Amino acid sequence: MGVILRHLRDQGPQSRAQLATGTGLSKAAITSLVSALVELHLVREGNVDRQGRVGRPGTEVTLRGDSVWGIGLEINADYLLLSVTDLTGAVIREVTESLSPEEHAPDTLIDRAAAMIRTVLADAEDTIIGAITVAPPGVIDYQSGLVRFAPNLGWRAVPLVSLLEEALPEVLVPIYLENDAKLSALAAFNVLQGSDVHDLVYVAGDVGVGAGIIADGQLVRGWSGFSGEVGHMLLDANGPACACGRRGCFELYVGLRSFLALLPRDDPDDAAMALADRLEELRRRMLAGDEAVLRALDVMTGHLVRGMSLIVDVLNPQLIVLGGYFGYFAEHIVPVLSAALEKRQMADSSHADVESSSMGIAAAARGGAQMSLERVFMDPSVLGGLLPST
Amino acid sequence: MGVILRHLRDQGPQSRAQLATGTGLSKAAITSLVSALVELHLVREGNVDRQGRVGRPGTEVTLRGDSVWGIGLEINADYLLLSVTDLTGAVIREVTESLSPEEHAPDTLIDRAAAMIRTVLADAEDTIIGAITVAPPGVIDYQSGLVRFAPNLGWRAVPLVSLLEEALPEVLVPIYLENDAKLSALAAFNVLQGSDVHDLVYVAGDVGVGAGIIADGQLVRGWSGFSGEVGHMLLDANGPACACGRRGCFELYVGLRSFLALLPRDDPDDAAMALADRLEELRRRMLAGDEAVLRALDVMTGHLVRGMSLIVDVLNPQLIVLGGYFGYFAEHIVPVLSAALEKRQMADSSHADVESSSMGIAAAARGGAQMSLERVFMDPSVLGGLLPST
Repeated sequence: MGVILRHLRDQGPQSRAQLATGTGLSKAAITSLVSALVELHLVREGNVDRQGRVGRPGTEVTLRGDSVWGIGLEINADYLLLSVTDLTGAVIREVTESLSPEEHAPDTLIDRAAAMIRTVLADAEDTIIGAITVAPPGVIDYQSGLVRFAPNLGWRAVPLVSLLEEALPEVLVPIYLENDAKLSALAAFNVLQGSDVHDLVYVAGDVGVGAGIIADGQLVRGWSGFSGEVGHMLLDANGPACACGRRGCFELYVGLRSFLALLPRDDPDDAAMALADRLEELRRRMLAGDEAVLRALDVMTGHLVRGMSLIVDVLNPQLIVLGGYFGYFAEHIVPVLSAALEKRQMADSSHADVESSSMGIAAAARGGAQMSLERVFMDPSVLGGLLPST
Repeated sequence: MGVILRHLRDQGPQSRAQLATGTGLSKAAITSLVSALVELHLVREGNVDRQGRVGRPGTEVTLRGDSVWGIGLEINADYLLLSVTDLTGAVIREVTESLSPEEHAPDTLIDRAAAMIRTVLADAEDTIIGAITVAPPGVIDYQSGLVRFAPNLGWRAVPLVSLLEEALPEVLVPIYLENDAKLSALAAFNVLQGSDVHDLVYVAGDVGVGAGIIADGQLVRGWSGFSGEVGHMLLDANGPACACGRRGCFELYVGLRSFLALLPRDDPDDAAMALADRLEELRRRMLAGDEAVLRALDVMTGHLVRGMSLIVDVLNPQLIVLGGYFGYFAEHIVPVLSAALEKRQMADSSHADVESSSMGIAAAARGGAQMSLERVFMDPSVLGGLLPST
């Protein structure tokens, strides 16, 4: 059944005949599989009114958005961001709650997260939750559902999945952990559905810097889930020491703290501002042509060019999507990075486009919600036992 | 039909019932698809005698090796290497012919290559050739079948595919061009069929250095075919100028010429030796503990660690396979590189193993032969028109 569901997601509403042609399955097989999907409340059949289309439309099979939701939750040092997506990929709800350093202790933070998830469950009524995917700001142990190390939260070896399961005994679906940059790459790729882009790299700029890789339409996770650890690429063997134990890591040159340290210290109010406000203020100054801000951006972008060139040499992506704090300064960074990559290209056809993410801070949570639905797209029968008894 | 063929390649001989379970197709569908594959001479049915197995074996479906061959040809400055693989992946034939600089002109070289291919065609008799995949030592334009630039041959904009088609009018199957490192990665992955390795990077060390990437079992080509151009990763912005127009490229530190330049000049005979003999001689000296050779290897391997660490940070491969001239010095390089990567790893589970390729110089041609068969595995019906009229 998954093949039909994925085909409807990628191609939009289809007649049974179109489904048979598109999937290579027989018409008889399509008939029985569509019936099963109707029973699972995942698709509906009926005449679909399409604007501007003449003639008899015929009966079409359409994804039902209301049957299943996916939940994504990003945990950050400053906020919790929850995103809910329906089966059609539409964002149903997005909630951000700010977090203070006093709330970083695992039990306090997990209580806050559980409360946010519980609100969605209460509103879901007959809608089934496919899964919950959480992006913690640290190194994940995928096997055990543990966060090994999250320096910005002061976490070490926190069994996040089992703590969430204990806090949410009413939740019967799987809880997954995934890296924020990988989820953001998934969300960015989802925005591009229907375009000709199948190879992209999402670069998330925060205190740390990570990348999510989509190659030929597939998320590249690496063999143990640690692809895209580009923040620790060595740029300079004689560079400053990094908290990771190495020297001269990429994020020491383009991470948020390093960028802010490039700005003049003559504005004591800045450090007291909330980070998002401060970045907005710096963005205003950049647009107004403030020389100190532009100088800092020039220095940071020069380093960004070096690191992104390495990634382009390895992967040959068609598109680089800049997320995190880089997005605030897109007007300055995008043309400089784009021109530098064009100058470096080996062949006319190996140029990578650069753009800024349109999703703001919601990218990782939104990708998490989409990944939570992947389980249903791969095997819709997992919903069998969870259906409301209507 | 392709799904059945690929299943037999990956799983070995299967009963019809096993094929139905493994592919998710109905038994009726399996019956008709297997019959079609039998007609195409791609599989046979019958009792398969398996050693040590008791009880009634049942009728099994097995790939026929004799029906289709794939041809791979590597063009190098020093040699032409042709490899022929049958549908089961077995290497049928491998021929290396040395090439002198006077034979580098496109028409001379292409005549030599066409003659090698023609010998295979003569021996093929009723066996169908799936395709011919050629690895030229330069930058490929995939759209037009052109070699843009091959410095070691002195080629610029050579329309290799159409010249080969002209030289081989009797060949009715497609001729593809592909990068040698990508083909070598495919061949290395094929050697590992049945293991748990699905993410590997093959690094080909020659005058230039390139990488082939397998991620989750799939070749990563990049959006325009230029993934793995790691030889031009910038290691040092103040480094020497590279022929590519950049500075401080990885291959200026670990490429073959740079390695040879690290060796003492007091042995005038060395430069006159054929390259393979010279490398064998250097390998003997390494094993005998020659200090000058060990010192040169230490310097080169230090740079190799830097470049490979960047690749590991981006891709998190489970295995790095060292090919090209690196293979001659595996006993020295492998433990040093392996230990350095282990020391750098972020998490216990992100370590990359390192090994030396077991395929010698045949890797690219062998991968080319396998890629030539991919077309048949994707759509066996392409053979319909080419079958002998038996």
